[in-house]
Amino acid sequence: MSASPVTVLGLGPMGRALASAFLAAGHPATVWNRTPGRADALVENGAVEAGTAAEAISASDLVVICVLDYEAVRAVVAPHTTALKGRTLVNLTAGTPDDARATAEWAAAHGIGYLDGAIMVPTYLVGGPSTLVLHSGPADLYGRHQHTLQAIGGTCVHLGEDPGRAGAHDVALLDIFWTSLTGVVHAFALARAEGVTAAELAPYAKGVAGLLPDVIDAFADQIDTGSYPAGGSNLRSATAIMSHVLDASHRRGVDTTVISAAHALARRGMTAGYADDSYAHVAELLRD
Amino acid sequence: MSASPVTVLGLGPMGRALASAFLAAGHPATVWNRTPGRADALVENGAVEAGTAAEAISASDLVVICVLDYEAVRAVVAPHTTALKGRTLVNLTAGTPDDARATAEWAAAHGIGYLDGAIMVPTYLVGGPSTLVLHSGPADLYGRHQHTLQAIGGTCVHLGEDPGRAGAHDVALLDIFWTSLTGVVHAFALARAEGVTAAELAPYAKGVAGLLPDVIDAFADQIDTGSYPAGGSNLRSATAIMSHVLDASHRRGVDTTVISAAHALARRGMTAGYADDSYAHVAELLRD
Ligand SMILES: NC(=O)c1ccc[n+]([C@@H]2O[C@H](COP(=O)([O-])OP(=O)(O)OC[C@H]3O[C@@H](n4cnc5c(N)ncnc54)[C@H](OP(=O)(O)O)[C@@H]3O)[C@@H](O)[C@H]2O)c1
Ligand SMILES: NC(=O)c1ccc[n+]([C@@H]2O[C@H](COP(=O)([O-])OP(=O)(O)OC[C@H]3O[C@@H](n4cnc5c(N)ncnc54)[C@H](OP(=O)(O)O)[C@@H]3O)[C@@H](O)[C@H]2O)c1
Repeated sequence: MSASPVTVLGLGPMGRALASAFLAAGHPATVWNRTPGRADALVENGAVEAGTAAEAISASDLVVICVLDYEAVRAVVAPHTTALKGRTLVNLTAGTPDDARATAEWAAAHGIGYLDGAIMVPTYLVGGPSTLVLHSGPADLYGRHQHTLQAIGGTCVHLGEDPGRAGAHDVALLDIFWTSLTGVVHAFALARAEGVTAAELAPYAKGVAGLLPDVIDAFADQIDTGSYPAGGSNLRSATAIMSHVLDASHRRGVDTTVISAAHALARRGMTAGYADDSYAHVAELLRD
Repeated sequence: MSASPVTVLGLGPMGRALASAFLAAGHPATVWNRTPGRADALVENGAVEAGTAAEAISASDLVVICVLDYEAVRAVVAPHTTALKGRTLVNLTAGTPDDARATAEWAAAHGIGYLDGAIMVPTYLVGGPSTLVLHSGPADLYGRHQHTLQAIGGTCVHLGEDPGRAGAHDVALLDIFWTSLTGVVHAFALARAEGVTAAELAPYAKGVAGLLPDVIDAFADQIDTGSYPAGGSNLRSATAIMSHVLDASHRRGVDTTVISAAHALARRGMTAGYADDSYAHVAELLRD
């Protein structure tokens, strides 16, 4: 077999999906999990289950870790700096950019190659064409392991040398995803309080989601250039609309905490004199 | 000319777009605006500018109004109940469902036919195929004027007899749109604070927006059935992710008011025992 061996530490839903993808692409895979008994299906598909993390690490030059959080990463790898020395650790655990940078420093201090990555799709898409994985860290390390990492599927991108860049993209994208879904859930609750079922609202809600990409492009351009022409709708009308949402929610006893916070931000923009500008201008109020 | 005449009251950006669409579809259009001088381009295209609202109303059986808010609607129509009697007033001004219901009651008390509608697209799409306009109120009235209203373009839908239904859909959909865009603007600010430009983030942000429709369908089904299987990711992991976004924002001095409110809601879901369920379960906490 010519495909390079890979070790996967952590066999939660995502770790198992990663190990399966490596196996499916023909890579000999050694796997380990803190709690035993998670590797059975993988072993059936050809994986080797290591008895200890040290054993697992020693089996491959490329060690992928994907656990709950960076504290769990530290708990797994800190005792094994000697085994990891000279190998490449690819950390696909979600966290903040600073977590990634701190782990990169720790790795450098111990002669461990380090790439930090973020998996941008749910487990069931891993290994398939619509997977997106963002990596950052030394370009030469990424180049050396790119072919193997590509087994995770779809699009694998290297975003730059700063190990925090993958995490920076990750938190920003998850910010959009979960803030949007908070709006979706709130909208369903508000519609329901008005006698409109979620199934009735859903087709239109999907239509609204379909409007976002064009606005994202327009806002991106405005934010990068610092110029905020209103185009279709301005901050004044966005603020008025949020008032309607707030008001309609209040009248039906629907929680308003999130939309109130958004409305307060819009009003700060009005106070700052942005009324006739694009809503994107409030981005400048978010940073101090 | 066989197309029915229509009157448009209010010539803000949207009122002008509506009048243009009626003219383009061959409808004789009479227009009026509180502040004169907004009708010049429309008059060039064949509109008749009325000197008073009463004159404008008397020109057509179908009177469309689209002004700032329902207070402005009252200011325009309240003095003209006699002129409006027996005609149909289609109110395309944005507001709350209760605003629509109150206006419908007022109209009924004065023998005025009343439909309430919501325009779900920006002005530049009006008259084109991707326009979406939601109407509610008496089905017979809608049937009578459907052909003329269709000139606004694209998809015109009648949602039911309750005059508040269009407004209920409207506020819920605007809730999704503006909450999502608040997430987008915040994500751009956070990325920027991490050295990632909006242009760099935008392609991935659009990818995230592309994930929403499937989640909207899944959440809709869960909310209507009251059963919340976690599927890809559960409330526990959503809560952890929001903590990362919060933490990353704090570290860079980026405002956290909106994501904090979303995170607090997620934590309420954890306390309520929904940790292993889909995030959609928090919809039940939003209504009391
Ligand atoms: N699931 C997804 O759809 C998805 C998508 C994108 C990114 N991610 C990210 O991928 C990572 C893994 O997610 P997941 O879905 O596999 O499940 P998870 O619940 O986030 O993580 C479970 C894994 O972490 C291990 N773990 C937790 N604490 C540990 C500790 N102190 N020491 C050693 N191991 C520890 C668990 O081991 P035990 O079995 O011994 O408890 C298990 O292997 C997370 O950072 C997540 O945010 C997940
Ligand atoms: N623009 C969009 O893309 C869009 C999209 C969907 C829905 N809508 C909705 O469409 C409606 C109209 O929006 P718009 O964009 O045309 O601009 P707008 O700024 O919301 O409304 C301007 C119009 O309202 C009139 N008006 C305001 N106060 C008035 C009062 N007290 N008495 C009489 N007239 C009054 C203005 O007359 P004067 O010229 O005399 O001030 C002008 O005709 C709003 O409810 C808006 O939410 C707009």
